[in-house]
Amino acid sequence: MNALAQTPGSVEAEVREIGRRARAAAERLALASSDAKRQGLAAAAETLRADMGRIIEANRRDMEAAGELSAPMRDRLLLDEKRVRGMADGVAIVADLPDPVGEVTARWTRPNGLVIERVRVPLGVIGIIYESRPNVTADAASLCIKAGNAAILRGGSESFHSSAAILASFRRGLAAAGLPEDAAQSIPTRDRAAVGAMLRLTDFIDVIVPRGGKGLIARVIEESRIPVLKHLDGNCHVYVHAAADLATARAVVMNAKMRRTSVCGAAESLLCDRAVAETHLKPILADLIAAGCEIRGDAETRQLEPRARPATEEDWTTEYLDAILAVRVVDGLEQAIDHVNRLGSHHTDSILTEDEAAAQKFLAEVDSAIVLHNASTQFADGGEFGFGAEIGISTGKLHARGPVGAAELTSYKYAVHGTGQVRP
Amino acid sequence: MNALAQTPGSVEAEVREIGRRARAAAERLALASSDAKRQGLAAAAETLRADMGRIIEANRRDMEAAGELSAPMRDRLLLDEKRVRGMADGVAIVADLPDPVGEVTARWTRPNGLVIERVRVPLGVIGIIYESRPNVTADAASLCIKAGNAAILRGGSESFHSSAAILASFRRGLAAAGLPEDAAQSIPTRDRAAVGAMLRLTDFIDVIVPRGGKGLIARVIEESRIPVLKHLDGNCHVYVHAAADLATARAVVMNAKMRRTSVCGAAESLLCDRAVAETHLKPILADLIAAGCEIRGDAETRQLEPRARPATEEDWTTEYLDAILAVRVVDGLEQAIDHVNRLGSHHTDSILTEDEAAAQKFLAEVDSAIVLHNASTQFADGGEFGFGAEIGISTGKLHARGPVGAAELTSYKYAVHGTGQVRP
Repeated sequence: MNALAQTPGSVEAEVREIGRRARAAAERLALASSDAKRQGLAAAAETLRADMGRIIEANRRDMEAAGELSAPMRDRLLLDEKRVRGMADGVAIVADLPDPVGEVTARWTRPNGLVIERVRVPLGVIGIIYESRPNVTADAASLCIKAGNAAILRGGSESFHSSAAILASFRRGLAAAGLPEDAAQSIPTRDRAAVGAMLRLTDFIDVIVPRGGKGLIARVIEESRIPVLKHLDGNCHVYVHAAADLATARAVVMNAKMRRTSVCGAAESLLCDRAVAETHLKPILADLIAAGCEIRGDAETRQLEPRARPATEEDWTTEYLDAILAVRVVDGLEQAIDHVNRLGSHHTDSILTEDEAAAQKFLAEVDSAIVLHNASTQFADGGEFGFGAEIGISTGKLHARGPVGAAELTSYKYAVHGTGQVRP
Repeated sequence: MNALAQTPGSVEAEVREIGRRARAAAERLALASSDAKRQGLAAAAETLRADMGRIIEANRRDMEAAGELSAPMRDRLLLDEKRVRGMADGVAIVADLPDPVGEVTARWTRPNGLVIERVRVPLGVIGIIYESRPNVTADAASLCIKAGNAAILRGGSESFHSSAAILASFRRGLAAAGLPEDAAQSIPTRDRAAVGAMLRLTDFIDVIVPRGGKGLIARVIEESRIPVLKHLDGNCHVYVHAAADLATARAVVMNAKMRRTSVCGAAESLLCDRAVAETHLKPILADLIAAGCEIRGDAETRQLEPRARPATEEDWTTEYLDAILAVRVVDGLEQAIDHVNRLGSHHTDSILTEDEAAAQKFLAEVDSAIVLHNASTQFADGGEFGFGAEIGISTGKLHARGPVGAAELTSYKYAVHGTGQVRP
């Protein structure tokens, strides 16, 4: 299809038709048995493995056109045998997850004898808008389908051929197992107007999940007429409290910052109580510098560690996704909580302390999706929570917060069992 | 304040300032103890009782200006001693409800020893936009505060003075008990631009709850940049299946339609299997007509009951909120489910049958917030569900579906308890 030849009206009509087919597929999928969904996803994992050559060939076309992209972007785009196998394995793992649909999450009996059950049901149709990493195509579609939803995928134009090849293979698997192919569809045009059309398709899409950089997410939030499960930046903090154990603090700060610097759960700011700046912060910073991390500190930090560069106001709100850490010495717990709530991004924050009361206060008062005590912020991950897989980490408070797994991609209904009750 | 003298910019600035204060109040309220919230609401119930004279006097001013309103509108607007007392009692009931905040709704331990807890937390700031009934001011504010949220209220201009008097009294109670007054604020202008400004206040309002007619809700859904807990129309169905018990069917249909015709859970359509049209539908329709209900039927219904008027296509999708019922004879379960899903409003629908398998299929396949077996649709009510109070019935699938009580006005966070774990 030649995107340039399309008029805005025809893009809209095309997106609408995709939405209509997704709704029909979602209605069938909502009634599919757990076994049928498991078999469909297992079959999709198989076809992805079988189609490896075709997928890598399609990816080569994207890579050829991606000459002008940065090295990290090119790396995210690249598919090799290992990555395709990893993607197929991911789909197979989702296939074997427990089915959330049909789960009775509450049941009670009213004085009049009515038995009320709250039962998990699928959300319906989920629109996923993502950038560069083509494996999102299979990851996101499989999680949506596990929860009985249809997915409409809109990948970045740089991964156009890769995503199309992955989707074709995935759909072939679904169809082979008797699931509706249209449970996973993509928008088959690079026309940017298609994103706008998706974001206005209120009658056919129930929720939009954007995955990508700040620019993409800001555009989606601004334009969408459909509820958005948003994943904003992860400006995560580690706070070394006066009662922190030194060995724990050294190990956790190093892991939170340096294990992988590019993930949303990576620590971007470190706060340390003045009382333990000399004993704890000094060796922690020496460790980090030795590991190749740049330190941007406030005045007290720089006195303690002369190799630190000065931190500006901007540093306290920046998600570096790199080997850089903003460091501030604080008076104590109150100031640390205030700093995190005012300057953080309400994603994931950790306190390191042996003082249980201080930990409780931090966990209660820090207004973030994930708050940790004596553990690394890099545990902010659906897999680490035991969800098997996640479609992202929600920083919003509506519907889902924190890792969004299959259960978070469901709604519920009330089933009320009576024996002829009428209301007085 | 003279609304006419305000420029659009000043309305926006005023709404923004209200939002800023609501956010500050919400931050304090999120940390308030269960006792403090209970005492604050109990005090507000007291001041409402003490200020009865002032509230009724304010209502008189609204009633005088409401000469041109219809009789039902005037009735909804009117406050007398009994209604003010009922409103205060409602606040006292909410005061004594269990506090949802802090409830640990799930707890599990990971293989690495991390203990993960999902803990209920408040949503933040809730914007409520409502029409005519001034008691919503106290009802909605008390439920929001119970769940630790601040409320920004925007009532209809016809209830301007009544709502202001109720709110002033309510705030006096909160303040007397040491809760932040700004946990309940209203937009103190009749300027319609204020609603638009509220709907764009994404940084200070977390969720919008519209309560009112279709026009209001449609405007809110169209204009809001903030997530909406929507309550669309209740086109509720009762389906008399071939295996329905006759006495149950007569009692439930009568109650579902005629107990109160103006509530969203009132039945608006009746479906009956052809197999029992003669035995069941005929006496049911005779009962209804005797009770003053107008019947609009399809051809088969009209053959059975000559007093029925012909139903048009529009009747199948209309929420009458009146003593009118659309009636159709169907082939059986499949056709009934298809009718409800295609023409209903996904609110509340009931099957009457002694056949357990048929009931299970209906409950599973009808895509509505509330599905009932052998019970009246008029049970669609937070009180009847045991929630103590509700802010509305959500027909959306995101975040909350069905009756929205205090628990549905919360979000959650994950509190993770470690002993120094780092991620491998």
